[in-house]
Amino acid sequence: MNFLDRHTELIDNEISKLFTESNLLYHPFISKVYSELEAFCLRKGKRISSCSTLLAYEGFKGKIDEKILNVCAGIELYRHAILLHDDLVDEDTKRRGEKAFHLLFNYDRRFGNVTTIFAGNILYTNSLSVISQSGFEKEKIEMVMNLFINEYKNVNESQTLDLLFEFEDTSLDDWNIMASKRAASLFNCTIQTGAILAGASPNECEILKKVATNIGFSFDITDDIIGTFASELEYGRPSGGDIKIGKKPLHIIYTLELLKGKEFKEFKTLLEKKNPTKDEIQWIKTKIEESGALDKAKETSLRYGKLAMQYLNTTSMNKKSKKRFSRLIDYVSESLDWYK
Amino acid sequence: MNFLDRHTELIDNEISKLFTESNLLYHPFISKVYSELEAFCLRKGKRISSCSTLLAYEGFKGKIDEKILNVCAGIELYRHAILLHDDLVDEDTKRRGEKAFHLLFNYDRRFGNVTTIFAGNILYTNSLSVISQSGFEKEKIEMVMNLFINEYKNVNESQTLDLLFEFEDTSLDDWNIMASKRAASLFNCTIQTGAILAGASPNECEILKKVATNIGFSFDITDDIIGTFASELEYGRPSGGDIKIGKKPLHIIYTLELLKGKEFKEFKTLLEKKNPTKDEIQWIKTKIEESGALDKAKETSLRYGKLAMQYLNTTSMNKKSKKRFSRLIDYVSESLDWYK
Repeated sequence: MNFLDRHTELIDNEISKLFTESNLLYHPFISKVYSELEAFCLRKGKRISSCSTLLAYEGFKGKIDEKILNVCAGIELYRHAILLHDDLVDEDTKRRGEKAFHLLFNYDRRFGNVTTIFAGNILYTNSLSVISQSGFEKEKIEMVMNLFINEYKNVNESQTLDLLFEFEDTSLDDWNIMASKRAASLFNCTIQTGAILAGASPNECEILKKVATNIGFSFDITDDIIGTFASELEYGRPSGGDIKIGKKPLHIIYTLELLKGKEFKEFKTLLEKKNPTKDEIQWIKTKIEESGALDKAKETSLRYGKLAMQYLNTTSMNKKSKKRFSRLIDYVSESLDWYK
Repeated sequence: MNFLDRHTELIDNEISKLFTESNLLYHPFISKVYSELEAFCLRKGKRISSCSTLLAYEGFKGKIDEKILNVCAGIELYRHAILLHDDLVDEDTKRRGEKAFHLLFNYDRRFGNVTTIFAGNILYTNSLSVISQSGFEKEKIEMVMNLFINEYKNVNESQTLDLLFEFEDTSLDDWNIMASKRAASLFNCTIQTGAILAGASPNECEILKKVATNIGFSFDITDDIIGTFASELEYGRPSGGDIKIGKKPLHIIYTLELLKGKEFKEFKTLLEKKNPTKDEIQWIKTKIEESGALDKAKETSLRYGKLAMQYLNTTSMNKKSKKRFSRLIDYVSESLDWYK
């Protein structure tokens, strides 16, 4: 997608600018932490979070400008703050083909883990500073700040549930509650930020909330499927890590609904097993496919993607941006990798 | 101190109100996390952070009101968000005589740790929401929000250095850099919040920054001495935990400066030892005292406390609040426990 590549380049330039502007020379280790943060934020990838901000802005404003690009860089800091804590707590080893942030540091394991907790906090506060100093009208900044605050709270509440579900039986209702505050919250933050700063009306923003929720659900489902099934070469990290720690993505919930009798029991027992073997993970994957759960999850993702576009089409966003959003949604729901 | 007890009671009521107002019924585990957060914030203790906010407000405004009490509760959420991550990374087992937050949860160790990372983020965002909705004039809220953002960033940068110093040789300069962004940042946030909301001038706020820095240094030194020397009965947690993980409080830096030859080498070797025995910790404590480092650190703390009052006396804060600040500073620098 040409516009995605172009936007990514523009936003990456802005991210670099942000880090260059920081005055971090007061201690060499702080400089090192920030330079690792910069490299982390700039790892090869499409900037889907901030691209959705940029599209929303352009869609209501008719053009992009320097101020919104700066805000987009702030969006990426926000997004990566979430990823830092997420990779840490999931004990992931890789992110976008490179070492997870908590594995970048010397000394011992605790040193990397602790640095990552604080680095996540530092990145999040830096994202708030970017918004606060973005130069937009004060009322708009206030609204966007509240988004950054409330949606970060939501994402963290959702992450807490995601953790709980590793340990407890999880219903479809549970999953929906959790997913309504995860990628849905992220996209609500990114899309509404663009729309608010472009001057979209409160009514439009209400509709965009539904757009974001549906894109979020579509994204979460697809991303989880990729996490379970994509090869390390495609995904940039070992597949099946979610199964190892007992996560409950939608395709697992569906499998638990669809399997019966002995197979159900075997599946559930293996899911709850600490450190399943490679063969056991492979068996789990096979059952997700054979039961029809994988197809059902893919269909659900596509359905959410379509709903998102239906809502978006009721807004006054310009045609060019609507078309691009449609391609962005296809990109997400057709299992292309968010992280690449 | 009567005013401190009265203020603590008022602020605790406001903290309870904040938690009662939250709508958390969407999932029982989220309700549980919030109810543990409320209990954590309300553990027996003097609310020195928020009391300094209240004193500053009263000192420039002449009275306290409902709005500032609400902000004070937000200050306590902010303070406790820092404590959550701090106890987690220091692997502390207790806080104020009760279990550390990360030890409050079922399942395994990781479950408690991960919940605490997210709970810290949740508490911090809730503190920002309180400020944002506090009902003060928009320009004042904007200034206070920026304080909450910048000082949280500073505290987290400082915590990163504090971690590094467990692993590396640390000079007095290093310690000063770290301490200039730890309690100093906390007090800068709490005191300036009160002053800004009361309408103190930018000039007064500049002076208050110096007041806060000096109180912060005084507090950090004293708090670290308490951490090394106070009994669990006095302190609410086992003493010497800082030595076990190789922290470098000022009294240790001073000891390293004052000891010579064989004693210096022995002291340094023991400091760097993983899991020193009780006898070894006792030996370290004895050397801190015998070398004169403990007295030197106490004097330094008192000196900072005095400097803080000298700066405070140049402001137009009213006499009653100045007097109370003076008692608050004495309370901090005379080694009375911050946490009780």
